[in-house]
Amino acid sequence: MTTTDHRPSAPAEGLRARRRRQTRADLHAATLRLVRELGFAKVTVEMISTEVGVSPRTFFNYFPSKEAALFALPGALPAPLADRFAEGPGRDTDAVLRDLGDVLADHLQEAAPSPRELEDILRIAEGVPSVLATFLAQCEAVERDLAGVIALRTGTPADGADAELLAGLAMATVRSGLKRWSQQSDHSAGPAASVRGAFTALRALFGRAAVQ
Amino acid sequence: MTTTDHRPSAPAEGLRARRRRQTRADLHAATLRLVRELGFAKVTVEMISTEVGVSPRTFFNYFPSKEAALFALPGALPAPLADRFAEGPGRDTDAVLRDLGDVLADHLQEAAPSPRELEDILRIAEGVPSVLATFLAQCEAVERDLAGVIALRTGTPADGADAELLAGLAMATVRSGLKRWSQQSDHSAGPAASVRGAFTALRALFGRAAVQ
Repeated sequence: MTTTDHRPSAPAEGLRARRRRQTRADLHAATLRLVRELGFAKVTVEMISTEVGVSPRTFFNYFPSKEAALFALPGALPAPLADRFAEGPGRDTDAVLRDLGDVLADHLQEAAPSPRELEDILRIAEGVPSVLATFLAQCEAVERDLAGVIALRTGTPADGADAELLAGLAMATVRSGLKRWSQQSDHSAGPAASVRGAFTALRALFGRAAVQ
Repeated sequence: MTTTDHRPSAPAEGLRARRRRQTRADLHAATLRLVRELGFAKVTVEMISTEVGVSPRTFFNYFPSKEAALFALPGALPAPLADRFAEGPGRDTDAVLRDLGDVLADHLQEAAPSPRELEDILRIAEGVPSVLATFLAQCEAVERDLAGVIALRTGTPADGADAELLAGLAMATVRSGLKRWSQQSDHSAGPAASVRGAFTALRALFGRAAVQ
């Protein structure tokens, strides 16, 4: 979602990025609050924007629809993280997964919804086809984007089977980490440690295979 | 879907299994035909059953709902395949993935919808929340079931992180293979070869990592 960020200078970007993140979080929180209160069908982009004190035009700078604002899923890797990963050392699978786990954990630390919130949203989604369709489309877009970044790192075609497969594995590993996180009794720490743990488990699975 | 099959004797099972498979395919085809013709909401289980010449009770032996009959996704591994896999030699990740790729390819060869059909069904799903929800629930159930079979093979807990992670990887790899298959110009051969290829690619990705 924040791939449109470019960096004129490092400190300026830090401030602007933080403000953008806050507005995005406010729009998402307002959407969730209004949908809980009024039901999904009754909530409009105008209402959400008014609640946060921005124009509908600003709303659409952050989300393409109220469906998207409801999920506010972590989108594509922001440019600084994507660059850090693409320019990292090593093209072998283990190095790629190690660094991918790092940047995805950092990214999710910022953006992942809490387990309770996610449960809430998924319950809403069950009754509203456009919400569920948006959710699936977003997951697909994130995975496609990830395949592109992986291809940059490994020097392979973006639509190549290997980059796509690695992106699919990474998404499965993130899901596994988020699931472990949601099963913990205390979620205050954020999901980063669980996601990192899942990537470590993945690499260990294959490391063990290599030595046996 | 066919885990209820038990084996009194090998030849009898072959016949019964084949008949079951045919009835299942007929019910699915009739559901798809009726939904295309009348729209999802107007189609009933009674109509589908009549079309195939079975009772609604028989319908429910195959599918829990018309949503499920519309997808007729390959379900859990049938008992003979699950046993073959669980009892196979080697608990290391590479051996597990090799054999998992084999049984999943065999399973999908029987049961996977054609790319055109899948596209059709997904278009229907976009307009009907219960269809999309059924689809996601089925994918989850298959993955959970797979984790159980993997745990049997590796001697780890069924709800353990490793078995779940491997199941997630296997699903991602199957998806990658099906995607490649759907992009081919000729689908007459079925998806087995593409799914096998995706598992080979997965193992190669990690094999390369191990030697670098």
